[in-house]
Amino acid sequence: MLIVMKKDATQVEIDQVSQSVIDQGFEAHPMPGAQCTAICVLKNKGAVDANMFSNLPGVREVIRVTKPYKLASIETHPGPTVVEIRGEKIGGNNFTVMAGPCSVETEESMFRNADKLAGMGVKFFRAGAYKPRTGPYSFQGLGEEGLRILEKVRDRTGMGIVTEVMDVETLPLVAGSADILQVGTRNMSNTSLLKQLGKINKPVLLKRGMSASLEELLLAAEYILSGGNHNVMLCERGIRTFSNHSRNTLDVAAVPALRALTHLPIIVDPSHAAGYTYMVPSLCLAGVAAGAHGLIVEAHDDAANAYSDGQQALHPEDMEKLLVQFDMIHKAVNL
Amino acid sequence: MLIVMKKDATQVEIDQVSQSVIDQGFEAHPMPGAQCTAICVLKNKGAVDANMFSNLPGVREVIRVTKPYKLASIETHPGPTVVEIRGEKIGGNNFTVMAGPCSVETEESMFRNADKLAGMGVKFFRAGAYKPRTGPYSFQGLGEEGLRILEKVRDRTGMGIVTEVMDVETLPLVAGSADILQVGTRNMSNTSLLKQLGKINKPVLLKRGMSASLEELLLAAEYILSGGNHNVMLCERGIRTFSNHSRNTLDVAAVPALRALTHLPIIVDPSHAAGYTYMVPSLCLAGVAAGAHGLIVEAHDDAANAYSDGQQALHPEDMEKLLVQFDMIHKAVNL
Amino acid sequence: MLIVMKKDATQVEIDQVSQSVIDQGFEAHPMPGAQCTAICVLKNKGAVDANMFSNLPGVREVIRVTKPYKLASIETHPGPTVVEIRGEKIGGNNFTVMAGPCSVETEESMFRNADKLAGMGVKFFRAGAYKPRTGPYSFQGLGEEGLRILEKVRDRTGMGIVTEVMDVETLPLVAGSADILQVGTRNMSNTSLLKQLGKINKPVLLKRGMSASLEELLLAAEYILSGGNHNVMLCERGIRTFSNHSRNTLDVAAVPALRALTHLPIIVDPSHAAGYTYMVPSLCLAGVAAGAHGLIVEAHDDAANAYSDGQQALHPEDMEKLLVQFDMIHKAVNL
Amino acid sequence: MLIVMKKDATQVEIDQVSQSVIDQGFEAHPMPGAQCTAICVLKNKGAVDANMFSNLPGVREVIRVTKPYKLASIETHPGPTVVEIRGEKIGGNNFTVMAGPCSVETEESMFRNADKLAGMGVKFFRAGAYKPRTGPYSFQGLGEEGLRILEKVRDRTGMGIVTEVMDVETLPLVAGSADILQVGTRNMSNTSLLKQLGKINKPVLLKRGMSASLEELLLAAEYILSGGNHNVMLCERGIRTFSNHSRNTLDVAAVPALRALTHLPIIVDPSHAAGYTYMVPSLCLAGVAAGAHGLIVEAHDDAANAYSDGQQALHPEDMEKLLVQFDMIHKAVNL
Repeated sequence: MLIVMKKDATQVEIDQVSQSVIDQGFEAHPMPGAQCTAICVLKNKGAVDANMFSNLPGVREVIRVTKPYKLASIETHPGPTVVEIRGEKIGGNNFTVMAGPCSVETEESMFRNADKLAGMGVKFFRAGAYKPRTGPYSFQGLGEEGLRILEKVRDRTGMGIVTEVMDVETLPLVAGSADILQVGTRNMSNTSLLKQLGKINKPVLLKRGMSASLEELLLAAEYILSGGNHNVMLCERGIRTFSNHSRNTLDVAAVPALRALTHLPIIVDPSHAAGYTYMVPSLCLAGVAAGAHGLIVEAHDDAANAYSDGQQALHPEDMEKLLVQFDMIHKAVNL
Repeated sequence: MLIVMKKDATQVEIDQVSQSVIDQGFEAHPMPGAQCTAICVLKNKGAVDANMFSNLPGVREVIRVTKPYKLASIETHPGPTVVEIRGEKIGGNNFTVMAGPCSVETEESMFRNADKLAGMGVKFFRAGAYKPRTGPYSFQGLGEEGLRILEKVRDRTGMGIVTEVMDVETLPLVAGSADILQVGTRNMSNTSLLKQLGKINKPVLLKRGMSASLEELLLAAEYILSGGNHNVMLCERGIRTFSNHSRNTLDVAAVPALRALTHLPIIVDPSHAAGYTYMVPSLCLAGVAAGAHGLIVEAHDDAANAYSDGQQALHPEDMEKLLVQFDMIHKAVNL
Repeated sequence: MLIVMKKDATQVEIDQVSQSVIDQGFEAHPMPGAQCTAICVLKNKGAVDANMFSNLPGVREVIRVTKPYKLASIETHPGPTVVEIRGEKIGGNNFTVMAGPCSVETEESMFRNADKLAGMGVKFFRAGAYKPRTGPYSFQGLGEEGLRILEKVRDRTGMGIVTEVMDVETLPLVAGSADILQVGTRNMSNTSLLKQLGKINKPVLLKRGMSASLEELLLAAEYILSGGNHNVMLCERGIRTFSNHSRNTLDVAAVPALRALTHLPIIVDPSHAAGYTYMVPSLCLAGVAAGAHGLIVEAHDDAANAYSDGQQALHPEDMEKLLVQFDMIHKAVNL
Repeated sequence: MLIVMKKDATQVEIDQVSQSVIDQGFEAHPMPGAQCTAICVLKNKGAVDANMFSNLPGVREVIRVTKPYKLASIETHPGPTVVEIRGEKIGGNNFTVMAGPCSVETEESMFRNADKLAGMGVKFFRAGAYKPRTGPYSFQGLGEEGLRILEKVRDRTGMGIVTEVMDVETLPLVAGSADILQVGTRNMSNTSLLKQLGKINKPVLLKRGMSASLEELLLAAEYILSGGNHNVMLCERGIRTFSNHSRNTLDVAAVPALRALTHLPIIVDPSHAAGYTYMVPSLCLAGVAAGAHGLIVEAHDDAANAYSDGQQALHPEDMEKLLVQFDMIHKAVNL
């Protein structure tokens, strides 16, 4: 940590700040510069709370140098984390596709879609039984009935099930049915939920909050990891910006940035980023090219009658060509 | 709702969309324009799901006209909502100040701060017993012990207690101690929590999500209102933007915009918007001038040793002058 | 255009707005809805100024339906624009790489870099002779001397020259030397410059403003197109958001969105989006995969001593593998 | 400046970076920390280009400590700059209102509006003769004829004239007529124009770019100041964010932040921030309360027929009450 003093800070103020650093058990090294004095703080074990010093007299700014997360950091775990689910590996050099409708709907519709996707080689089926909707009057998901249908899909097709968990109350229920627990963008900072997820032994797909920095995403993962659950995957799903041609702005740079910061697998969700079917294929391809370990895509064979998010769903048949393209691009990336 | 067709949409496509609108039980009025045809949808009772039509052949765009919230809307409740707590009125022409430290700390420190604030006429004391922190290694709040201290503060000073509720599990506990339940920015979209808050009879201070639109904020309020709890207050606390001189960007325009959209009281939180003590007074004054019904301000008489957020806390003594300024500006606003 | 009236708008107000529409020479069709009345405006030739109606009594909102640009629109020019420069085609099914240092530096350094890039088959050399720097104390470019060096690079290697034009005064000079005139992100809305670019016959690479919508970008292009210069290429170079792991946020969704809106070629600049060398290759690949017609990349064989932007330059040798990857991905995209 | 090395940086790399710092003529002080080594750079005269070091082997990050602007900084000019124009003082403890229509229109309309405003005590009249419009088909301003009308307004009312200058070509013309040259948000980074403005002796009102940081705004001011023109005023006019209830997001925190960074007067433009007349008064009051030295407000007595921006114009009669409110709030702020 670096404490930058104001230009007109007095020597007394500089000494007081140094003493305050020492009082916390750290080392203080004042460095007088041409414009101002900076005090280097050493011997702190990780993230010192900047708050402690920022309000002291004469302090202009406190600059943090070390990262506040540990278990999620590539520095403490240099090799890639590979999550294994029903014999499938996610992370490392593997490339994984998860696909399916936004919501669980009728058994017939789910079987029809899952059969098509499984037939193309897709290994994970996604659909929400519990839906976090913006307003109370929108469809909120089938709940337990939806979980039953998802279990049948798994029995029938052998696909792994990815579905969202929304709260601590329904966590046991959802964890009993799902192979991967999805934490949605609106819950990335729901620390009560994250703490519980740390206590169970089930892979988690943690979506980046709509306006979360990567550090905040990694700290959310750290809540789960520090509880003892090491099977965490991160998901870039678009961020909120001024840009209005897509529902959110897919931040593809998050993929190489996360690969440099963490060992956890990185999945891209092009559907929620796009918001419109027509641009989903391009965002899929961009995600693969940026180096993602996998994609989670909304697909529905009757989008006009989907219970939710029909306007951004691909037709399963469009997936066929895409799967070939993913393969070609994944090869190019790993050339 | 307005369905805008593509320039080259065929008559057959236009007819199919119209039929699809009629099939949903609405009226369809195609309006051929110079550049394209638009189909007006009438007789829909509120928010029609745009998804149903956006993927039909020939459709370029679906434009929503009516608002998706009802109970929060000023159109269904033209007079202002005034929330009454321990004899104090919030909303309407009243102006309310809530102040206190970020976290509940020792009883002694809380008493000291509360006494000072109560002595100046502040009627509500704010402090968190449960803290939603970005990382798992930060101080997470005193929990139940904190609630006990807050109850003693109320007994001692007569101030109403504002404190955060983070999840459904601790809701009964927190609701048993608090006079106002604060829902933090990270939980604005925690619909499981919002639904439970609709079922209890305790005022809620709902903070705007860091990247929430006002429509999303009002829909979050609608979750609570539609459950039966009508004592909801909204809080603008800064949004996340590229701007980095403040911790968040205080969106003062949200105040007049919300006053035009809703009857609910609007509180401004200048402390989390600012992030730095030095700019908190200016943001306080701007909030009052923009027409807020009240402020919630972090104040601590020993900020350098605060358990959290010390870098943005005012000293209670700075509050004295501010309270006079609030009064002068509130008079100017209501001239 | 659709004029939405307030819920409590009177019939007199509705009639007045309708009359006002008719007075402008358009047709007005009031549509009474369940919640409010909307007035469809027909027969307007293109973009009616919403201002004319938004302040009339009883009006809640004016919703624009038609696009304000014409020549840039795919609706008026369905086939792709292909810009031909020195025998090279940009746009359509072609894929073009432009590469080189940020600034023109010494002749020796430019020759060395250009030779390497030309040897790999790169057809366009980019480097700035005039530099728009954020502060007055940064290196502002070699000016005319830089243009002379660029001409020598073209003579020596046969590469086309891409260089920035910053103002009307130096336009004749820069246009005399360049094959493609680059308009930087800070000048996208410099309408005085755009108007002059419309009057000359030289291809323009128009970069998207840091916070420009695609509509604003297309309107900026419309300034040039409507002046008579039809050789315009658009460039996505990252937008400004809260996200801080990259210098800007590469908005890859702009590529499919622009392909749906315009016939103009779309170039991606991964270097200014990234800001850090390590993530440039991933953003290059994502740009190709998203469907760009080309890339403009900063490359320098001695980045540590670059006059500007060294921290985001690729080494020309890294380009060799990338060119193979571009080819593989471009094939996958056009499968 | 602080150069943070990677956790696994070798001693050789650390030594090389230190040597590289020394080679530039600075001092290097490596500080080995618990997690990584940081190298403090001392003796640099101001803003060292971070680029020089960020690409060296083993470097993780370069953190800048000193500010890159000098003449705009409060550290080099602690007292406030007061700009004096036609006997009126802007800055310091003065509060100044500039008002008028968006565009210069007919002489009659300008006289009518100016008379009303002058009658209320407004000392500066604003209106654009040259207009930077987003699209080429919008009204572009009356040009020279507009300047003539503005001169007549000054002769008639004694008000100072504020009008926009868009390019170097028309600068002599506009400077010949105006009392204050306004640089619009789209031109904040037009460094060719800024350099010319540094060479003349006429006050400049420099608007913040839509997505400019305060550092970028101050660097733009530095271009003018370093040319020799010290009469620069800064203008906060709203930034571009995801928030869509106002045209831009008024960043009121910019006012206290700028007051802490610079001695230049700060003007708030509530009209372009709001975009809708109904919220302009609240943003005016918030701007005064935040500590602005003045406001620039769009006012028009016939907004429905304004040539541009009518939807955000106040009626001059609404200004009367506002002027009283400004006075009350300005008193409260300076209590």
